[in-house]
Amino acid sequence: MINTLQEAFNRSTYQLTGHGKRNVQVLKNAFEKIDGQLDSDIYGTGKVIEDFQDKMAAFLGKEKAVFFPSGTMAQQIAMRIWCDEKELQKVAYHPLCHLEIHEEDGLKELHNIKTVLLADETRVIELEDVVSMEEDVACLLLELPQREIGGQLPRYETLEDISAYCRKNGIKLHLDGARLLEVLPFYEKTASEVCELFDSVYLSFYKGIGGIAGAILAGEETFISESKVWKRRYGGDLISLYPYIISAEHYFDQKSHKMPDYYGSAKELAVYYNSCHHVTTLPEIPVSNMFHVHFPHSKEEIEPILLEVIRETGVGIINYLKATGESSCYFEVSIGDRYQEVSKAAVKNAFLQLDELMKNKFSF
Amino acid sequence: MINTLQEAFNRSTYQLTGHGKRNVQVLKNAFEKIDGQLDSDIYGTGKVIEDFQDKMAAFLGKEKAVFFPSGTMAQQIAMRIWCDEKELQKVAYHPLCHLEIHEEDGLKELHNIKTVLLADETRVIELEDVVSMEEDVACLLLELPQREIGGQLPRYETLEDISAYCRKNGIKLHLDGARLLEVLPFYEKTASEVCELFDSVYLSFYKGIGGIAGAILAGEETFISESKVWKRRYGGDLISLYPYIISAEHYFDQKSHKMPDYYGSAKELAVYYNSCHHVTTLPEIPVSNMFHVHFPHSKEEIEPILLEVIRETGVGIINYLKATGESSCYFEVSIGDRYQEVSKAAVKNAFLQLDELMKNKFSF
Repeated sequence: MINTLQEAFNRSTYQLTGHGKRNVQVLKNAFEKIDGQLDSDIYGTGKVIEDFQDKMAAFLGKEKAVFFPSGTMAQQIAMRIWCDEKELQKVAYHPLCHLEIHEEDGLKELHNIKTVLLADETRVIELEDVVSMEEDVACLLLELPQREIGGQLPRYETLEDISAYCRKNGIKLHLDGARLLEVLPFYEKTASEVCELFDSVYLSFYKGIGGIAGAILAGEETFISESKVWKRRYGGDLISLYPYIISAEHYFDQKSHKMPDYYGSAKELAVYYNSCHHVTTLPEIPVSNMFHVHFPHSKEEIEPILLEVIRETGVGIINYLKATGESSCYFEVSIGDRYQEVSKAAVKNAFLQLDELMKNKFSF
Repeated sequence: MINTLQEAFNRSTYQLTGHGKRNVQVLKNAFEKIDGQLDSDIYGTGKVIEDFQDKMAAFLGKEKAVFFPSGTMAQQIAMRIWCDEKELQKVAYHPLCHLEIHEEDGLKELHNIKTVLLADETRVIELEDVVSMEEDVACLLLELPQREIGGQLPRYETLEDISAYCRKNGIKLHLDGARLLEVLPFYEKTASEVCELFDSVYLSFYKGIGGIAGAILAGEETFISESKVWKRRYGGDLISLYPYIISAEHYFDQKSHKMPDYYGSAKELAVYYNSCHHVTTLPEIPVSNMFHVHFPHSKEEIEPILLEVIRETGVGIINYLKATGESSCYFEVSIGDRYQEVSKAAVKNAFLQLDELMKNKFSF
């Protein structure tokens, strides 16, 4: 008997989210065609790391880039450098910023940096939030898309206005671009066009790009030089980072041009969800490859319904469900390579079933 | 024309130091027999990381262990936890401790921890240094062997005495065991016997063990729980650490029982060096797989001699040389798998040549 969403998802015929399993094959595929005689990077030096950093700097339109084992490390370091430069230990970001909710307060515990929270849990940061800040800050961090609220985005003109305001007022602007590539089709911009608005940029390799781990931090030469010193202080300057670098490059080359497909699929799939009784997506029309699916009912009520749909139709719509309160729950959808392989007829059928089950249960 | 020691070493028939090239083949070999369907660890959870942590905890005789991307990160975190517990931001270690000279002052910049330096650049920390400390500290860090002075070791009884003194006086004792396995043959102890003297222990996987990168931190359960929180703060809690974990386990299994051979070879090789005119090793008789080779002459004078020996004999005795002053230089020897493959006759011949050239140049 299949009792959990994860189990049902694993056994389903078609899976709607992600690129595939996170297993050792991801590494094997990336290294299959790599010559064993290729030298390791050594403490941040060597062709394998330097070439990739140059490639990413060029792609992002920045002077220099440095490869980090994680975005957590890269972004805290960016904040610290900007704070030290302005001699003001204060930064501003969204209340659901990764640094605020997923890093055990590393920014505060390691750097004693204070934070100003802009906007709220329902919306992204707008120009007005920045202009009306009552305290000065060294840096403003914007996350594109704002992951924890379904991957919402500000209008591109808003980004331009915030950038201009920050430059005029001596506030550094940092891009949490963990999912930067995923928003380019909506903005109809290149990565370097978006990055031009920011002083420093972080990009992750294991979201839409589908690598194993690792991140790039990019900016001007002096900023990157300083970040390398901090990388060593953090213990992030590993003797060999090539397992992440080579896989990052492999999947970057393989997936970066597929972002318009993922975005298109996300919009298509969101329509299916929104066609179901008591199911809504946030945003209603996705602006990247991701969105959240919300139910105005308890996790205990919704889980059996999702399980039944997956078991009956063979369509693995999702592998988990998270309660947000006593009578609400949600999950996150992130489109990758798997969606390209699903049978459209099976998907259509799965959502007809979901709608039917939701109606039967909640129509009174 | 071969102009550098690195070049000459690379082209030599036999190489006396290390396990082999640090290249992608190191990863390929470790993953060759790993099933691609094996699931990745996910943010510190999952069979691949948990099993290896349990295995290392058992090997080190500690309650728990946690895998870190680097020793730099692991050891700073150990220091921080012990300082917070005692509410005293001060630790003691050797002036040539890794934290003091190789980490861009991360301990001070990230944690504001003060340091007390014990012993000096010619010798290891003795009981007397600890007893006569004028300031109280939260933790004493001992590095076994003391790498920067040729890999010297205190007597085992000294370790026992220091451990007893620290326990009695409320000072936590931490082991920088980057090369712990390498000293076990000299001490004639198991890893857990040595670790029993310490409250926390760090072990590296890319020195004698020959892995790609990564480290283990081990101790009591509460200490390890706290270290996981700090690991996340540092950005060391990567979504996937398996590229390092699987290779660490592969090479640990392959090399941990070879430490007596490496130790024996180091003693044998040191005799050859010490038989040469104006060449001395530190320690004179190695106590692990490593030692330093010192020359009382400038790097400029010694380099051509080493180059000639390597070119003429095909024996790659070393790949670099470091000036320590205007008229002194040295290099570090670290024995690994390569030494087991050399022709003893070729080695003997190389050292006869080295002795001859040194005599010709410096006998007046």
